[in-house]
Amino acid sequence: MSVTDEYLANNAAYAQSFVGPLPLPPARNVAVVACMDARLNVYGILGLADGEAHVIRNAGGVVTDDEIRSLAISQRLLGTTEIILIHHTDCGMLTFTDDDFKRSIQDETGIKPEWAAEAFPDLDEDVRQSIARIKASPFVPHRDAIRGFVFDVATGLLKEVS
Amino acid sequence: MSVTDEYLANNAAYAQSFVGPLPLPPARNVAVVACMDARLNVYGILGLADGEAHVIRNAGGVVTDDEIRSLAISQRLLGTTEIILIHHTDCGMLTFTDDDFKRSIQDETGIKPEWAAEAFPDLDEDVRQSIARIKASPFVPHRDAIRGFVFDVATGLLKEVS
Repeated sequence: MSVTDEYLANNAAYAQSFVGPLPLPPARNVAVVACMDARLNVYGILGLADGEAHVIRNAGGVVTDDEIRSLAISQRLLGTTEIILIHHTDCGMLTFTDDDFKRSIQDETGIKPEWAAEAFPDLDEDVRQSIARIKASPFVPHRDAIRGFVFDVATGLLKEVS
Repeated sequence: MSVTDEYLANNAAYAQSFVGPLPLPPARNVAVVACMDARLNVYGILGLADGEAHVIRNAGGVVTDDEIRSLAISQRLLGTTEIILIHHTDCGMLTFTDDDFKRSIQDETGIKPEWAAEAFPDLDEDVRQSIARIKASPFVPHRDAIRGFVFDVATGLLKEVS
């Protein structure tokens, strides 16, 4: 049995006590942008209840065109106005460089990715970078309630980046 | 008090009983790609425990370059081998077209986004489209354990797309 099959068995149990449907627009008007890291359960970390917030995640919790796309849809079509950014300690993105990662792919496959890997050497700096990218986007209308945090995987606490 | 401040109060309570840190690589070697929708708590839906799986999310749960970037990092650097894709019923992406959305942004800001909005008219077709994009990518090494699902926001159940 694959891990996916195990998770499908979990889903059958989950549906037994599921109550739905909730409304489509996020009830608390918040969008979260966080790293994909396996230790970052944003529902637990923020105490998010079902239906409250959009959750956007990728390697690093960085802001690229796809996060601008998601935030534009979140704010323009579904009414969110606040943005919470979450990076975290012990992040994989601190352990390599774009050049080395892309070179290893090129050496193995013969093709160099046309995208940036978005590795970064400093967590706080990259949170600020993500905020700056959102603030510079003409496509995200609500840019005055954006706050960025680093989640500590040892303590469970969020630390705000100023 | 902003909603963000409320969530920070939740975080302080969360950290009281937090036990960490867990290891960086996902313990179950799985990456999930799901829609950002507020009703899609992937931890509940799949019974994911902390530390088990990468979670990648965006508007629609679609696969663009940024999801290929995240999956490449997930598989090449952090050892995941299975991919679970999740779209869902009552998705916002079913309610507009790329042309109309981008026109409305152009009319309001004077600038047309250079990215696709990735709206879609059919859930099953877009799940298959997402699988096809991953299978076509030379940058994602493990492409033989990819399965796609539609989550029903009324029942809580996942339905596999064949």
